[in-house]
Amino acid sequence: MLYGDIAHLEQTARSLNLPMPSELRHTGPGGPYPIGRIHGRSGEAAAAAIEAAAQDCLSGALDAMVTAPIHKGALALTGLPYPGHTEFLAALSSPGRPPPVRMMLVNPHLRVVLNSIHLPLRMAIDQLDTETLFDTVQITHQSLSRLIKPPLRIAVAGLNPHASDGGLFGSEEAQIITPAVARARELGISVSGPWAPDSVFRMAWGRTPKDKSFDVVVCLYHDQGLIPIKLLGIDDGVNCTLGLPFIRTSVDHGTAFEIAGQNQANCASLLAAIRTAIDLCEMP
Amino acid sequence: MLYGDIAHLEQTARSLNLPMPSELRHTGPGGPYPIGRIHGRSGEAAAAAIEAAAQDCLSGALDAMVTAPIHKGALALTGLPYPGHTEFLAALSSPGRPPPVRMMLVNPHLRVVLNSIHLPLRMAIDQLDTETLFDTVQITHQSLSRLIKPPLRIAVAGLNPHASDGGLFGSEEAQIITPAVARARELGISVSGPWAPDSVFRMAWGRTPKDKSFDVVVCLYHDQGLIPIKLLGIDDGVNCTLGLPFIRTSVDHGTAFEIAGQNQANCASLLAAIRTAIDLCEMP
Repeated sequence: MLYGDIAHLEQTARSLNLPMPSELRHTGPGGPYPIGRIHGRSGEAAAAAIEAAAQDCLSGALDAMVTAPIHKGALALTGLPYPGHTEFLAALSSPGRPPPVRMMLVNPHLRVVLNSIHLPLRMAIDQLDTETLFDTVQITHQSLSRLIKPPLRIAVAGLNPHASDGGLFGSEEAQIITPAVARARELGISVSGPWAPDSVFRMAWGRTPKDKSFDVVVCLYHDQGLIPIKLLGIDDGVNCTLGLPFIRTSVDHGTAFEIAGQNQANCASLLAAIRTAIDLCEMP
Repeated sequence: MLYGDIAHLEQTARSLNLPMPSELRHTGPGGPYPIGRIHGRSGEAAAAAIEAAAQDCLSGALDAMVTAPIHKGALALTGLPYPGHTEFLAALSSPGRPPPVRMMLVNPHLRVVLNSIHLPLRMAIDQLDTETLFDTVQITHQSLSRLIKPPLRIAVAGLNPHASDGGLFGSEEAQIITPAVARARELGISVSGPWAPDSVFRMAWGRTPKDKSFDVVVCLYHDQGLIPIKLLGIDDGVNCTLGLPFIRTSVDHGTAFEIAGQNQANCASLLAAIRTAIDLCEMP
């Protein structure tokens, strides 16, 4: 089922000589939408499609939602207070009391889960605490243990160079990270760390479980996870939201306004996102 | 010329049935050295070899120095106040007034220069300032412009997610990084940035200059540079010190005490370090 402004999508498909899918749901608000430019009406169209699809997931009519990129600036013009899809979907899932969610990025080589996303790096450090990190590990365990045969091997990256080398370069490993790992292990979760950030991704890199020591790396800030993910494969990367009451995957690239309407976009990441959503739905 | 405790090296070579090089300089202090363990005498041996080789570089008898890994804990036991080779060599180069030096890491795919190294991440942010970052760009330019045909393309990574996305996620890009880049450009250095940290390494990744948009990435903290470098190639990575009065390269791995004395070490990184030192010496 494709959600969006169907008249606009049909017009674009016609002009590019592309087929349209048969299952559609028109969500407005009605164009025209200036192509390749930030515009409030385009933000409204994105928000309407997201909201309608989320409601159908929440009602049980759909199992999963796959999202295309949105422009954060266009969404902001609508007045919605969400920096991106993830926060918007969490709020829709439980108005007034959104569930804790985490972003997972997946490509054929590596999976990373982010403890924080769009924060200044300094704030990501300031806000690092045992409770939130424990939640991240637990959400990761709950979401992935249905997908991966046990034991699901979760690694937690350190914050500082060499994971502080026993306290030489920082105290967050001993004071915050190690207690979160210990608490998760007490619940039977097979998690380890903190590992040296510059080594753990190599240990978690591989196409099959045998090729690697870890199935997923919990990362403490945006770029700790995004640098290795984007280096190893931008075209086939998928963004999954863990912790929502439904499955949600997304492309891991942006809107690419500079090629909008030209039929030049690479659909590999969108196809990978659809495939990952199906994989997650078919979990036992 | 091999610097070290020659009696110990000969004994080890004999027991492993390995040849010894012909040009040797004995630097003591005399063993025995417990193999695969942290020991003050081993730290003294490392320090003596480093100091003698550095003096021969400083006197002009040698053009370059290639270092094997040292154990930071063993070096600390000698009472020397240096966390590693780099700080030690800077102090030897100009006692009382060490020159500003920077670590560059190189593998066949990527070059990164670090603005700070063994600091807690929070402190690397606190200490980030325009002057130091400008020095890093200038040292990078001076050291590499002899090696790479102009224009040497230097990229500076941002600190925050998406390089703060125009100030949405942090202010360091506007307040610290952009002014440092502008100042270097005023001097004719072809540097750009701040670039989004999760994209810049992909743009600087390639075996030949044509394959990439940048020849080197200036990184703001240890793991920003080390994560991509170690992911793309740990065996053939080389560590270069930029800013010393002589050329210095090093392996980019540790001491691996768990395989000490077993003839199992992979020499790829040491060979790469020797080759890189020769390349740098042969620069016009």
